[in-house]
Amino acid sequence: MKAYNIAVVGPLGVVGGKLIEILVERNFPINKIKLLGTSRNKNKKIKFHGQTLLTEVAEEGAFIDVDIAFFCIDSNVSKHLAPIAIKEGAVVIDNSSAWRLDDKVPLVIPEVNPEDLHSHNQLISNPNCSTIQMLVPLKPIHDIFKIKRIVVSTYQSVSGTGKKGMEELNNQLLDYYFNTPMTNSVYPHQILFNVLPHIDDFLENGYTKEEMKMVNETKKILDKDIEVTATAVRIPVLNGHSESVNIETEKPISPEEVKAILGKAKGVKLVDDIKSNLYPMPIQVEGKDEVFVGRIRKDMSIDNGINMWIVADNLRKGAALNSVQIAETLIERDIL
Amino acid sequence: MKAYNIAVVGPLGVVGGKLIEILVERNFPINKIKLLGTSRNKNKKIKFHGQTLLTEVAEEGAFIDVDIAFFCIDSNVSKHLAPIAIKEGAVVIDNSSAWRLDDKVPLVIPEVNPEDLHSHNQLISNPNCSTIQMLVPLKPIHDIFKIKRIVVSTYQSVSGTGKKGMEELNNQLLDYYFNTPMTNSVYPHQILFNVLPHIDDFLENGYTKEEMKMVNETKKILDKDIEVTATAVRIPVLNGHSESVNIETEKPISPEEVKAILGKAKGVKLVDDIKSNLYPMPIQVEGKDEVFVGRIRKDMSIDNGINMWIVADNLRKGAALNSVQIAETLIERDIL
Repeated sequence: MKAYNIAVVGPLGVVGGKLIEILVERNFPINKIKLLGTSRNKNKKIKFHGQTLLTEVAEEGAFIDVDIAFFCIDSNVSKHLAPIAIKEGAVVIDNSSAWRLDDKVPLVIPEVNPEDLHSHNQLISNPNCSTIQMLVPLKPIHDIFKIKRIVVSTYQSVSGTGKKGMEELNNQLLDYYFNTPMTNSVYPHQILFNVLPHIDDFLENGYTKEEMKMVNETKKILDKDIEVTATAVRIPVLNGHSESVNIETEKPISPEEVKAILGKAKGVKLVDDIKSNLYPMPIQVEGKDEVFVGRIRKDMSIDNGINMWIVADNLRKGAALNSVQIAETLIERDIL
Repeated sequence: MKAYNIAVVGPLGVVGGKLIEILVERNFPINKIKLLGTSRNKNKKIKFHGQTLLTEVAEEGAFIDVDIAFFCIDSNVSKHLAPIAIKEGAVVIDNSSAWRLDDKVPLVIPEVNPEDLHSHNQLISNPNCSTIQMLVPLKPIHDIFKIKRIVVSTYQSVSGTGKKGMEELNNQLLDYYFNTPMTNSVYPHQILFNVLPHIDDFLENGYTKEEMKMVNETKKILDKDIEVTATAVRIPVLNGHSESVNIETEKPISPEEVKAILGKAKGVKLVDDIKSNLYPMPIQVEGKDEVFVGRIRKDMSIDNGINMWIVADNLRKGAALNSVQIAETLIERDIL
């Protein structure tokens, strides 16, 4: 079996760290691996397959000889660095929002639109975490019943903001316990015991970027005719995003049909046994690859509607795992 | 000014406690007050207006001479006790779900349907907390634009389950901090750092009772032609319920019009300045009487749609305060 030269850009972040874990877990066919960070973070030690690797600097020349570069960095850095990596011959799989809506860049969830990978020009974008977990179960439903409209409200964990989000929640928990003044720097307000209807920046139309990502990315990945309206909300959960999803379909649809479809859908785990109080929850999806779906019921307010509850590990399927699965699909289809 | 003989049934619970606080705060015209609990909880001391009152037993004979009895107890107890109180001459304002859908019992939010109080037969029901805070701002919108459909997802605090819910969250926080095993008895699963799409019991149709309360109570209070579909969710917040509310109206509607209406609506506080990161949040509504509304924006997925974010102190406007306001309205309108 062929093995590849890999670069992980941003290996010290929470998504970069997960990505390295997942490469090991899945036995990704690696010949050489490079961990590339800022010059400030040069020569940091990171464990990989029992060895200790040292981080190098992500700069011109670093991507010569690299087959696949996983970018786990901010959009601004990605905008600067991706053209360099591409020029030096790497295929870039980017986790940021920098290239997602670029017409020339495929935006891919392997269970949903793997065929879009065939038109890649050495750059593939990983969708937003909230979009990924919503579309994995909606794709097989759309194939049969044709979804017309989605109304979604999210319940997003602080790990979506990276390590610093998790630290802020933990620090506020200590301040609460010791009755010391609570401070916040990552979020505009306290997050412990609070709810912020605010993720990413606000736009002129009153929506946040996070909300508009769910609208625009769904159109690009699944179907441009699907209308989406979203409310993205941060809650005091460490890891695991939840979503309350309401869909309206063109064809008549029943909870039983949806359960039958999702019971055998790729990448989906159906957890829907209300008699035993079983439904998807963040504490249950930690470290899991699947998107968990439950609370499937008929929306009695319209003719063809369904409500469901979708939960996934936002660091894995929402980011690192999906990137690795994109790379695996490129290899499988021999289109690297 | 006339003063009344009052009974508070369930004075040791979290809603009963709030109700006593609010009677004092609002200078409710009280002649005599009785605090009625179980025989097990007889002679407990409770402070009221500088005096110390002793609890008595809620039993036959206890309501003779009582003008208004505030019931802050479970539905099962209310079913048994309300007929006794009524027979003895009291007007009962009940916080439980026991009588809410009874055709002969008005279900009232004073800002929304005070006229329904005129047909009371000594029994008035206080709506569910999630319904109250949703309908206070939706009423003036419905009056002008006619709401056809509501899609709502809730973010409900543990105080909705009473003191025991708040204690369970606090205990789990200590267990997390000290790394001791986390236990749960109030909720079927851990609530700290978790999300439960499960409030009250599940019904045959796959919905919870809490979700169906929002559907049925909205029809009874506001308009039987409004279709509602709800997802009720418990999150790790101590107090203050939040709701992501999507409405579709018959007439064309704009965010500017909604803001103008809510800016002067009774019982509503508009907090919607995204440029300054201002929007309603649970930590902000604690102890407040108003229902807070923000994040008002056009739903671009349909012709006449609006998204909004609604937060209120569920113990006050969602329960105790609304009950006291019902009593005040009965007095104002001279229909006690």
